[in-house]
Parts: sequence; C-alpha cells; structure tokens
Amino acid sequence: MNASESDIAERILRVDQYQLTMAQVYFRTGLHEVPARFEYFFRTCPDYGGHRAGYCISAGLEWLVRWMADSRFRDEDLAALRGQRTQSGEALFGEDFLDWLRSHGAWSGVTLRAVPEGRVVHPNVSLAVVEGPLIMAQILETALLNHLNYQTLVATKAARIRESARGQMILEFGLRRAQERAASAGGRAALIGGADFTSNIGIARLLGQPPKGTHAHSMVQAFMALGEGERAAFRAYAEIYPDDCLLLVDTINTLESGVPNAIRVFEELRAKGHEPVGIRLDSGDLAYLSIRAAAMLDAAGFTEAKIVLSNQLDEMVIWQIVTQIEQEASRYGVDPDGLIGRLVYGVGTRLITSEGCAALDGVYKLVALRRDGAWEPAIKVSETPEKTLNPGEKRVWRLYDERGKAAADLLCLAGEDPREMDEIVLRHPTEATKRRTFARSRLTECEPLLLDVLKDGKPVGEFPTLDEIRRRRDADTARLDPGVRRLINPHIYHVSLSQRLWELKQSLIEQALDGPTRET
Amino acid sequence: MNASESDIAERILRVDQYQLTMAQVYFRTGLHEVPARFEYFFRTCPDYGGHRAGYCISAGLEWLVRWMADSRFRDEDLAALRGQRTQSGEALFGEDFLDWLRSHGAWSGVTLRAVPEGRVVHPNVSLAVVEGPLIMAQILETALLNHLNYQTLVATKAARIRESARGQMILEFGLRRAQERAASAGGRAALIGGADFTSNIGIARLLGQPPKGTHAHSMVQAFMALGEGERAAFRAYAEIYPDDCLLLVDTINTLESGVPNAIRVFEELRAKGHEPVGIRLDSGDLAYLSIRAAAMLDAAGFTEAKIVLSNQLDEMVIWQIVTQIEQEASRYGVDPDGLIGRLVYGVGTRLITSEGCAALDGVYKLVALRRDGAWEPAIKVSETPEKTLNPGEKRVWRLYDERGKAAADLLCLAGEDPREMDEIVLRHPTEATKRRTFARSRLTECEPLLLDVLKDGKPVGEFPTLDEIRRRRDADTARLDPGVRRLINPHIYHVSLSQRLWELKQSLIEQALDGPTRET
Repeated sequence: MNASESDIAERILRVDQYQLTMAQVYFRTGLHEVPARFEYFFRTCPDYGGHRAGYCISAGLEWLVRWMADSRFRDEDLAALRGQRTQSGEALFGEDFLDWLRSHGAWSGVTLRAVPEGRVVHPNVSLAVVEGPLIMAQILETALLNHLNYQTLVATKAARIRESARGQMILEFGLRRAQERAASAGGRAALIGGADFTSNIGIARLLGQPPKGTHAHSMVQAFMALGEGERAAFRAYAEIYPDDCLLLVDTINTLESGVPNAIRVFEELRAKGHEPVGIRLDSGDLAYLSIRAAAMLDAAGFTEAKIVLSNQLDEMVIWQIVTQIEQEASRYGVDPDGLIGRLVYGVGTRLITSEGCAALDGVYKLVALRRDGAWEPAIKVSETPEKTLNPGEKRVWRLYDERGKAAADLLCLAGEDPREMDEIVLRHPTEATKRRTFARSRLTECEPLLLDVLKDGKPVGEFPTLDEIRRRRDADTARLDPGVRRLINPHIYHVSLSQRLWELKQSLIEQALDGPTRET
Repeated sequence: MNASESDIAERILRVDQYQLTMAQVYFRTGLHEVPARFEYFFRTCPDYGGHRAGYCISAGLEWLVRWMADSRFRDEDLAALRGQRTQSGEALFGEDFLDWLRSHGAWSGVTLRAVPEGRVVHPNVSLAVVEGPLIMAQILETALLNHLNYQTLVATKAARIRESARGQMILEFGLRRAQERAASAGGRAALIGGADFTSNIGIARLLGQPPKGTHAHSMVQAFMALGEGERAAFRAYAEIYPDDCLLLVDTINTLESGVPNAIRVFEELRAKGHEPVGIRLDSGDLAYLSIRAAAMLDAAGFTEAKIVLSNQLDEMVIWQIVTQIEQEASRYGVDPDGLIGRLVYGVGTRLITSEGCAALDGVYKLVALRRDGAWEPAIKVSETPEKTLNPGEKRVWRLYDERGKAAADLLCLAGEDPREMDEIVLRHPTEATKRRTFARSRLTECEPLLLDVLKDGKPVGEFPTLDEIRRRRDADTARLDPGVRRLINPHIYHVSLSQRLWELKQSLIEQALDGPTRET
C-alpha cells in the first residue's frame, strides 16, 4: 500500500461494514441522534499459555483521538459507500443517509472519557466511555477497538518483560517481524509499557526518542566475502563509531572468534582514548555465553562493557537467563549480580506480537440510551454469565488500602461515591455468593479512573508526554500488590460492582429474559 | 498517529537503526556501491501449537514494491538522521554520508526477483532475491521483512481455514482485534489466502471488492433500551434491506427468541416478495445451535437461508463444528451435508493475528557480493546447522512428478538446469546422509519459481489482480500432495540442494571455520 491508498483505507473507512448498515437503520428509524453511551473494556488479562498477565497497561488513546481528528466522511469516502449494491442491484445506501453523513458524519457531538495511557488496568473495568449520537458512537466502535486493543496488549507484554529484566535496559527490536504497519503503534506501546528504546527510526523520530542499534551479521559477512575477516569488520565499525562501539560477536563462533576479536579491537580503541560500549550475543545458550564472555571481558580489563542479549527473548526467557546466571556464574569466576547488572535485552518478535496471546479481547458495548431526558440502561444477556454486560451510567473508582496499595476497582452507578458510604460492599460481577465488605476505615484513597478526553468532540487538555506516561506506569505498578505483579499465577485483582449496580444488573437480566414473550 | 505523522514514520524511516549505522560503515570503507545479493526466505512453516502448516501462501510483494516507490531519503528523513548524536555528543552521521543518501538513497539500482503472490511456498526456498548496491540492498532489509513476513503469515492461516471450510464462504472480520493498522495488510492477505470477503470497508474499497456485514448485538439492544424488542429490531432491518436480510439471532436467547423472531420476520418478508439471506450465530455451541436453527428454518420453509457462524473461529474450530454436525444432525432430522453446505464462516481475531503463531520467521541474508566481475558467495555459519545459509548465486526450481504433483523445490547454482541433468540428486540442506535421486523420467515439468519484479528499480510488468492471485493459489494447492495439505501432521515437502550447491556450501563452511585464525 502506498500513501494515497492508505488515505482511503485508513481514515473513516477503517470500519466494519455492519457499522454502516446499522447506521442506516438508525437513520431510517429516526434513532440516529438519540444520545447513546458505549463502554470499552476487556474481559480477561492476556493468557500466554502457561502464564498469564495479572494486570494490563492502558495504551493507544492518543492515537485514537488523533485518528478521530483526521477522520470524517469526505466525498471520496462517501463515493465508496455510494458504489455498494444490494443483492437486487440497487444502491445499498440512500442518498439522504449519505447526505447526513456528509454534514454530520464527524465527531463534534461525541464526548469521550477514558483511563489515561500508562495506567495499570484490569478486566471488566470501563476504560473508555463514549457518549454521542447513536449513529456516530456506533461507527466509532471499530476504530476504537482497533486502536486500544493492540497498544494495550503490547504495552502489557512490555511491562511483563520489564518485570523480568530487573531494571536492566530493554530495547525494542520488533519491526521486521511486526504485523506490517502495526510496527509503529507496537513500538510506541512497547515504549509505554516497558521498553527503554526502539530500533525503529520512524517511531523513535515521531516520539522524539533516540533510536538504538548496532550492526548485523551481514556486515561481518560482507567483509568476509571480500576477503577480509570479522576483525576487520569490527575495526571498521570501531573506527567510525569510537564512542558507540557495540559489536555483534556470533557471526562465526562466539567464544573462539567473536569475543577475542572484539577484545582486540576494544584494546585498540582504548589505546586511542575511547571506551567501548560492549558486545551483543544473538544465538546459542545466552546465559552460558554471557558468563564466558563476561569472564573474557573482565580478564581483558573491560569490566564495564555491556552485554546485549537478543534472539527470541520474552519475559520467560529473560527470567531463565537470569536464574541460570545466578546458579552458574560463580563456577566460572564471574559475579552473578555484576553480570546481571551489565546485561541489556533486545526484544523483538515476542514483544511486538505479544507472543502466546496475539489479541486483547476488548469489546465496546452499548450500555445506555437517553430517552425523555434520562439514561435507559441497555443490557446484553449471555448464556456465559461473564459475558453479560454491566449496564447503565457508571463510574469507576480505584480504592487504596491502609498499605497504600490498590485494593480493588469498584464500578458504581453515577451519583454513588464510595467516600460517602459507611461500608463499601464489593459484589463479584457475576457470582451472587461472592461479596465482601471493605471497611471504610481501611480506605486511604479513592480515585476516579476515567478522565475527560473529548467534550463534544473537542480535546480537553494536552496529551501527556511519553515520559509522563511512563511515570504514571511506574507509580501505578509500585502501588500494586506484589502478588498481582507475579509473572506466573498472579493474584486476581478485585474488580467489583457496588450493591446498587449489582441490583440494577439483576433486574435488567430478569426483564430481558422475560421480554421476548411480550412481543407481537 | 495521524496522516502527517505516518508520512514520517512509515516511509524510508520504517527501518532499523542498525541498517543506517552499517550503511555509514559501508560508505566510509568504500563498499557502499559493491553489488550485493540478499535473499529472503523463512525457516519453518508456522507452528500453531498442536498443529502446524504444511505449506505457506506467499503474499505482500505488491505492497512492498508500492512502499519502495513511495520511499526514498527526503530532506525531512535526513533531518531525522542529522539530529542523532553519538555518546560523545557529536553527529552520528556525517554530512557526506547524508549527501550520498540524498542523491543515491533510492531504489534505482535495485533489481528484485521474487515468487509471485498467491503461490504455495516452502521453508528455506528463496522467495525474494535482491541485487543492488550493498548499502541500499542492506537498508531494504527491514521493510522487506516487515511486508512479506506478515502477509505471508496471514495468507497461510487463511489457506488453512479454507481447507477446513470445505468450499463454504469465508468472511474476514478481524479489523477490531487486528494489530492496529496491520488490519489493511491483514485483510488483503486473508483475501489472497482464503477469505472470500472482508468486513473492512477500507481495504475492500482499495481492492475493488464488496465488503460484507450485517448488524451487531447493539442494534437489538438499542431497540430494547427504547422499549421495543428483538423482533422490532429485526423488522426495521428487514424493511431497509429486504433483499439483504441477515439477522443476528443470539442477543437474548438463540433458540427461544432469536430464531423464532427471525422466522417471523422472514415470513413477513416473503409475503412481500423477498427472500431472506439468513441468520448469524455468534455464541454458544455453534454446531448444536446451527442444527437446531436449521431444523426450525426448514420447518418454516426457509431451506435456502444461510447460517453464518462467528465467534473465535479458526481451522480447528471449523473442523470440529463440521465433524459434530456430521455426527449429530440426523438425530434432529437435519441432513448433515445439506446443513454444512449452507454454512458461512465469519473469521476474525484468529485469522488476522494468525492465532498460535503470530510471526513468520522470515529472514533476509547476504548470500553473495560481486568482486572483480564475479559473485563471491557469502556465508554465515551457525552452531545450529539449520541456520547456516545456503550461499551464492542460486536458482529455484519446482519439480513436478508423473502425477503432475509438486514433488520438490530444488535450489541450484546459477547455470544449473534440472532439465539437463541425467539424474537429479536431491540433497538435504543440512544432513549429509539424506539424499535421494529423482529419476529424470519421472520429471513431467520443471518450473522456475522466481520472476523478475524490478529491474534497476523499474517495475517489470503489471501486478496481477486479486482474482489472478487467487487462481494461482488454487492451481498451486491443487498440485500439492494431499498429505502436505493436511491440517495436522502434514507431510514434509522436499526442499533440496543440488549436488553442486551442496558442495559449495560445505567448502564455504570449512573456510569460515578456519578463517578466524588467519586474521591479524
């Protein structure tokens, strides 16, 4: 796809067909401008197969809003709709409907509240609330899900990798194996969730970050094919980047060729007054090779040289490498903590594709419609109880306990404020017998999670910078119970309904199940 | 990201940093214009965990070439490079290097041969061969991998889903859970590999295809919240789309509410002279519900109504549904084959994310450099034998046997032609003891797989249409051994080296392993 093609495929027409067929139904039945409320939430934390996330990191909101600013029904978009035909060969969409889209098919009537990017978020909690004319709030569904699901998924994986890396630097290397142009959003989400830098120059440039990278095997191969060797390739690199010299040492044989050649070149560098940055290992037993390489670098006096590891890393592989180093390094005369503290992780495919769980199951559901000046709650009952919606006009609060840790996210009805409750009843979203009381005296802080983003289509305030988003992530993860942060078998974080919301939900379920018999 | 941002992030700067740091090394050492040859191939077919692909479908080539046509080093791209700093605070890239990129940083010297889109392809076979000045052929790596890996991955998943669907229609519904803007490339790849239509209006428009879609639960919910019911919602839809009426019947209760309401509305439609299209089931036991729904539709005289199934479908789930229908339908008085023949599959998340295997392991490797007028083969030796390159200037042939089936893909040296060999020796790429002879008499056809795409940067011919690509896919899959097409435990398709290529590879491995000791 080239640039002009992306202009037609990725603006307002980045939408599922059924949003438009439904939109025309709303238009013809006069419902199109009825105020509607939709909520975005995901149902489960990513399960990677054998391990699963205990929390997610929200991401994607700024890009959703930027997409909205770029996307409205223009003549070229309407032409695409006008060309569609019914089974009987007539125009699928009427000209009056297309006219309405031309004049009203934008976001000026849409209000958006959302959890800011970088926050720790949990299943079944509304992360974005859209209010606006039914037709536009409905059409927004596809793009909203497309933006928020993917970035939240990748930011979450990055946060897990950060947990396993024990504070060491993480480099995002995923562009080549990324899902085509998702590499940009994926790179951004990785930087939000846990990566320190990316190799992707485009996204780094866009976010005002320096990209990172060194060289590939092909550089060494090229020198070899032209009759020179690995050491000549290293020397050429060192000469051009004397203060940024990081050498990939596994093109031929890591311990017999790569590391000795790198040390020789590092010695030449030092003789000229420069310090090398380090080496990169990209194959083999990374724990064993890093121990042996560290011993060789130490013996040569390069105790500060970094060791960058890459090759199908993820949180589990990093954890295994760290554990193996702790168990084996001393046998080779290497201090395990010292070695772990000089490691840098280059993480590619498994981060940007969220290996093991390639999609977040986020959904966007109609929860209320405004009729005669009041919000009428809407519900969808499912034979799977977990899929039955939490209806109505809600608020989301995060409750902190006497330790200052986040204890639960509470979904309430509008007008309810946990700070004014004598005791806070936490109802399980689906199981009637699961309830508990959170004593008012334990509540040290009660924080609304949803903030205004768009009011009547206009942005409320500036977007936070990447650094601000990362500080929010760090603050939130620090206030999580360590059990929730565990990589394996994390504690379930409590997401609860207030007593009144629970009661509303039960009564609507009853009504819905009784409903069909009354229709004529 | 908005449109102007994508312009900076997704043209030539959609590249890994190390391509540019290496490029400057080539420039400073005078190697930048040495003709180089790189090859793209993947190492293994996708393994989805418990089942794996026996072949892949190539896709992504046209979009790679379109990206190339749009991407060169412009002033704004060079400004991003000029801003980069070394550890010591100096400019990372010199002005002379940036000047070279400004004047030469495009694809005019690059020649590309590739396997066309839609073809059946196999591991370790070169699918794209790039020749050009070392510096530009190197820089192309990231974008080439990014384009070809993802579309080939998704086209392959779509082909598997097509295998399981027994010729029934497949709809691609993945936009909402796709990896953000990869939805466009993913939608295209799904249409190449096996999907008949997509719900994504943007990509359908771009490819000149009609999008498909009906309505969501929210339409029924909206009518309910406003005091009406499911049947009223269905009626409204039927009135607006009398010849395109496909109703989602599981918002309340599929068998007690949805299907009876749909039948009532279908009867009203028929009374007005219209035939309904059918119903969609999106939850619950899809096999059981489709049997029961078919019985109800049949009893009401709607024997032609389609039953669209959706909800986390993939090739395994579809296979299970079909098998269950075969075993259970007759018990409910429903003809299994008749029911299977009226099913349509809406496949979303698991197709566009290639559930279970979210990345193809495609790589792009330097295989030769031109020196003194001749190609010098380049090799990278790996401690994992499968990762050691097949070096040099090669040709790829597909051999067909006496049944007309594809028997093997043979990698030869340039100048070798299997049609001129008395007997064709097929060497395993890594294992010396695995070899066999393909009798010349069995060879019914011998086809070169790589075609010219770009010569010195200029396109050779037109791109095939989507229909042409699909016909190629069908022709190729028809000529595969059924064992290779199996969804579970497919036969290994033979990819072999010619005797001469095998010998070249062995001698280069020896040289490389001896090499390092000779350096000073």
